[in-house]
Amino acid sequence: MRQETVKVAIWGFGAMGSGMAKMLLDKKGVEIVGVCDRNESRVGKDIHEILGVERKNHQPVIVNADIDAVLDGKKIDVCLCATDSFTEKAFPRLKHVLEKKINVISTAEEMAYPQAQNPNLAAELDQIAKENGVSILGTGINPGLIMDLLVVVLTGCMTDVTHVEAKRVNSLSPFGHAVMEEQGVGITVDAFNKGVEDGSLAGHVGFAESIRMIGDAIGWNVGDIKTQMAPIVTSVDRKSPHGFAAAGNVAGVSMTGQGYVDGEVKIDMIHPQQIEPEMEGTYTGDYITLKGTPEVNMSIKPEVEGGLGTIAMCVNMIPQIINADPGLKTMLDLPVPRAIMGDMRNFIKA
Amino acid sequence: MRQETVKVAIWGFGAMGSGMAKMLLDKKGVEIVGVCDRNESRVGKDIHEILGVERKNHQPVIVNADIDAVLDGKKIDVCLCATDSFTEKAFPRLKHVLEKKINVISTAEEMAYPQAQNPNLAAELDQIAKENGVSILGTGINPGLIMDLLVVVLTGCMTDVTHVEAKRVNSLSPFGHAVMEEQGVGITVDAFNKGVEDGSLAGHVGFAESIRMIGDAIGWNVGDIKTQMAPIVTSVDRKSPHGFAAAGNVAGVSMTGQGYVDGEVKIDMIHPQQIEPEMEGTYTGDYITLKGTPEVNMSIKPEVEGGLGTIAMCVNMIPQIINADPGLKTMLDLPVPRAIMGDMRNFIKA
Repeated sequence: MRQETVKVAIWGFGAMGSGMAKMLLDKKGVEIVGVCDRNESRVGKDIHEILGVERKNHQPVIVNADIDAVLDGKKIDVCLCATDSFTEKAFPRLKHVLEKKINVISTAEEMAYPQAQNPNLAAELDQIAKENGVSILGTGINPGLIMDLLVVVLTGCMTDVTHVEAKRVNSLSPFGHAVMEEQGVGITVDAFNKGVEDGSLAGHVGFAESIRMIGDAIGWNVGDIKTQMAPIVTSVDRKSPHGFAAAGNVAGVSMTGQGYVDGEVKIDMIHPQQIEPEMEGTYTGDYITLKGTPEVNMSIKPEVEGGLGTIAMCVNMIPQIINADPGLKTMLDLPVPRAIMGDMRNFIKA
Repeated sequence: MRQETVKVAIWGFGAMGSGMAKMLLDKKGVEIVGVCDRNESRVGKDIHEILGVERKNHQPVIVNADIDAVLDGKKIDVCLCATDSFTEKAFPRLKHVLEKKINVISTAEEMAYPQAQNPNLAAELDQIAKENGVSILGTGINPGLIMDLLVVVLTGCMTDVTHVEAKRVNSLSPFGHAVMEEQGVGITVDAFNKGVEDGSLAGHVGFAESIRMIGDAIGWNVGDIKTQMAPIVTSVDRKSPHGFAAAGNVAGVSMTGQGYVDGEVKIDMIHPQQIEPEMEGTYTGDYITLKGTPEVNMSIKPEVEGGLGTIAMCVNMIPQIINADPGLKTMLDLPVPRAIMGDMRNFIKA
């Protein structure tokens, strides 16, 4: 077994970054050696204080707004980057870390398969990683597992696949104000439609990534990818801890996407997300329906919680990205994700 | 892309071996270059004739009882070995193929994780494979995917796991006489109990492998593994294409298994298999219930068909075992299984 603890830095200490820190503090054989965040309420504070957990035998970790101060002069195995959703925006930060010869795991949704929308940046990240002898992975619950990797794994027991449908029906109720705003919760239908038109409403980011990942994995040459966003209009008042939608207004967003192969829709993505879905009889769950031989009808009920799921996926892939050959990796390239219940050092190859 | 087609030999042309051949004949970029089987009804015949399929542009492949005649003097990328269930019995054959510098995929249930019950043979296979610059993998639907790899993948979205339950409720109706006999279908309860006692009734082979694979994957140090076999006694006459159980006799076998961690059952395996389960209100399916954070409740209904699933898993892992570093591999070591819908050569690394 490796003697030295696995050393992790975290860039971005919002819901995801701080959740990963909390998870890491409960694990054996791993240590948080630095945290970068520019939010003034956090800078200069010890992460244990921010998280409201006892420090026990851990060293204090003071949040610093300067990434170089966090990363320089230390031995660091991996930096968890939880700052962005889009590859283009994340790129300079990811490059910066790779050039310090530190492995990277990114929570950016588009980084789950950057080949899909930014093939040039993906190639550049691959080259930078190789030049610096380290590796980089984007992952999360979705994209990263539920609507793509899990689909791919299940096709593994099929002799022939003719159509893929992945459906994730989830609740936005556990999420905070930022997500309410991004998804249009509580606004009018007019405001929603305007937001879709001017691009200010993001909805779910990841269909292009999931569709392209599935296609590349099983050898379907996906041509066009189309996506649609529609408001989920509530007929009753719905209230969640951080959101409210009055009857007639928007309780969430219904996203659909299609991947075309030879002019035919072969991959369907269906992803309605809203606050308090049960109030109008919608029950959450993850569903994968694979047509072909044999057919596979999978469901996970309720849906795997997005926040916890993303936190877990990023932390659980730390050994795989440390063990990987240099370069840009996707979930298709690496051994399967798995929970880390023992000492993390046992997961690292000599 | 690689120019040369992927070249496959098959050892054992029973239900699994012939099913894999049929699947391979429908794929692009791959070629069956030899088949070994000692069944007199098959020796000397062309596999297309045996399979009842048109030969089209494929070369004839004459079944030969002599493995050396099948393997020697040809370039072969992988040999699919579908001859045994147990590592000890398969070992000399697997060694024989590896020593010819040919990669191996084995359908033997115990080979899905030979470390579980034959750690010495596993180490020996690893060494032989490395000495010959090739790799070897055991896989199938179960063990191989449903009650182990899929469990492991789903733990990937969990920050903490406290208990694992994998349940596979399947129908034996599609299977032939050999399986009816192995599972005790149609015999009396007395005969069943005698068969369990003297070891002539195998039931499902794979609990030790699945339990050990899950434990090793997530870092649980599994101590004792216990398994039980009980008859499923039918209260009505049940008839399947190749089996019959009169009321009061045995319609199948209910297998249960437990993996202990620190004296506590942390992994539960539940696997009832019988003919015509619907006749007494049992509906087939695969179920994974993971306790911890967050909890995951997965179901696949109906269950993934065992025969087709095993055939698909073995064929679909061909690229991964060709691409692998030399040595003994398990499903935990390799990139995820996936259907092969395009030219198989595109799946092979340069």
